[in-house]
Amino acid sequence: MTRIGILGYGNLGKGVELAIRQNDDMELAAVYTRRNPESVTIATEGVPVRSVADLETGKEDIDVLILCGGSATDLPEQTPKYAALYNVVDSFDTHANIPTHFAKVDEAAKAAGNTALISCGWDPGLFSLNRLYANCILPQGADYTFWGRGVSQGHSDALRRIPGVADARQYTIPVPEALKAVRSGSNPELTTRQKHTRECWVVLEEGADAEAVTKQIVEMPNYFDEYDVTVNFITQEELNRDHAGLPHGGLVIRTGKTAGDKNCKIEYSLELDSNPEFTACVLVCYARAIARLASEGNHGCKTVFDIAPAYLSAASGEELRAHML
Amino acid sequence: MTRIGILGYGNLGKGVELAIRQNDDMELAAVYTRRNPESVTIATEGVPVRSVADLETGKEDIDVLILCGGSATDLPEQTPKYAALYNVVDSFDTHANIPTHFAKVDEAAKAAGNTALISCGWDPGLFSLNRLYANCILPQGADYTFWGRGVSQGHSDALRRIPGVADARQYTIPVPEALKAVRSGSNPELTTRQKHTRECWVVLEEGADAEAVTKQIVEMPNYFDEYDVTVNFITQEELNRDHAGLPHGGLVIRTGKTAGDKNCKIEYSLELDSNPEFTACVLVCYARAIARLASEGNHGCKTVFDIAPAYLSAASGEELRAHML
Repeated sequence: MTRIGILGYGNLGKGVELAIRQNDDMELAAVYTRRNPESVTIATEGVPVRSVADLETGKEDIDVLILCGGSATDLPEQTPKYAALYNVVDSFDTHANIPTHFAKVDEAAKAAGNTALISCGWDPGLFSLNRLYANCILPQGADYTFWGRGVSQGHSDALRRIPGVADARQYTIPVPEALKAVRSGSNPELTTRQKHTRECWVVLEEGADAEAVTKQIVEMPNYFDEYDVTVNFITQEELNRDHAGLPHGGLVIRTGKTAGDKNCKIEYSLELDSNPEFTACVLVCYARAIARLASEGNHGCKTVFDIAPAYLSAASGEELRAHML
Repeated sequence: MTRIGILGYGNLGKGVELAIRQNDDMELAAVYTRRNPESVTIATEGVPVRSVADLETGKEDIDVLILCGGSATDLPEQTPKYAALYNVVDSFDTHANIPTHFAKVDEAAKAAGNTALISCGWDPGLFSLNRLYANCILPQGADYTFWGRGVSQGHSDALRRIPGVADARQYTIPVPEALKAVRSGSNPELTTRQKHTRECWVVLEEGADAEAVTKQIVEMPNYFDEYDVTVNFITQEELNRDHAGLPHGGLVIRTGKTAGDKNCKIEYSLELDSNPEFTACVLVCYARAIARLASEGNHGCKTVFDIAPAYLSAASGEELRAHML
């Protein structure tokens, strides 16, 4: 059995707890929290909730610690710290800062003789894998990544920070015409606006000015100003009823040509009713791989690029060759 | 530079020759043929065509030998034989015989200190990878593989063996309703007939009986009897004009549920204007990986499951993390 610790019991941590149940060779050892452990009730009976401080000894009985915090402030600090104490997996998703994060985690993990995986999930993660495979196979071509239709938690948070907004959900939606052009193999150059639209569902605070809120949304730099945005005002009741889920998904497409000038298209897509639960499924099978690499003495920081697919599976090489090849 | 030898100069061998041109770190060392080398002219100037007999010394100056023969009779003999002499890559695609083939190649490669890769291409190959990744991520779900629309060379050959048939092409086509049902997440159980149709374009020999040929086609065991088949008779001129290419493609779909009962769909698809040229592109980037594994002393037989994605790329880990993760 691979014993998993979860640090952080938000949407992703809860997803990891669920995902472990689908894998007979894994078990949840403990959930670690920054809150008072007695205030946290988890879904798995008989598994302790412990304080994050208990991790400091480096002696918790876990094979892999899955870090379920956020990329903005939690993971840049936590992953190097805990890679010095345990084998760890994170879902660090600030693409631009991956090289720095990798270097810190690699140094800590190597010094301690641990194995770490950063930036696991679906993007970065599965989408990255598909970009890499497709680029190696078709060196001459163009890459396209589309996200959605799905809830962007970052953009929903940005809406909620606007004065007068009580609650909100933001959906990112690929533009159908852009997708069609990409799939046609015409290798279009697409602007930000041409690729995705943003759909906002906003609950106003009492007395808030809808027009002023709309203006603030559509003009918000980086988040909305480069997109075609629709803003819909609804009641909290409607938001809770119709927009409670966290669905997401997207596509990675590479169109290219062989040296014989033949067109080829490789397309990978995800449709997920729950972004955090699916991301957790990815983290858990990569935690299996990390436990194995660690047991083989293969230490340091890894990414999904460094891990042979067979390591993700509980089945033997023989079984995989016989049934899945 | 990784020096590649090609054994067999048919469609696939020609595709490998082309694919090497798209990879600056690879070069074609020689093409080996069972024919009289002087009778074979290749597309690359300055590269020798040599006799297959020249391989026997084990001293040809090549890093990886890509075996471009057929799975029925060539590869079962060639791959173990040449794995004892060189690092090799093949596209052995008789799924049921993979375990036996693997064992023979593994034994030969290990004894000689070489590295071999079997069953590379897109199915087995990229489709297998996608089945594996998706199964590890979503342990509870159902797998669906569809092929086409594309030319099945095996079925085209079967048509040409019928008395009265001068030439023929067979297209395998996914049934749109089946695809729709799978994508809906309803996890349908589909019969062979429900998944694919087969479309035949047949040139009759002079005086042949169209009705008798049609009957032979639709009743042919394994190849056609379990499918809905359409048979179209055309002239050789029309066949040459409209059906000269070897397009193919297909889809791998896994639909599943998280332990929280949320639906997820993972879909991977290929659309290829040239099946052999694309397959060759896959073989060539895996040849890069095999050369690296060999140089690291990682010997024996591998499949795509055993190879970390980063090994396929000429770029460094740093470059991949910065630009593709």
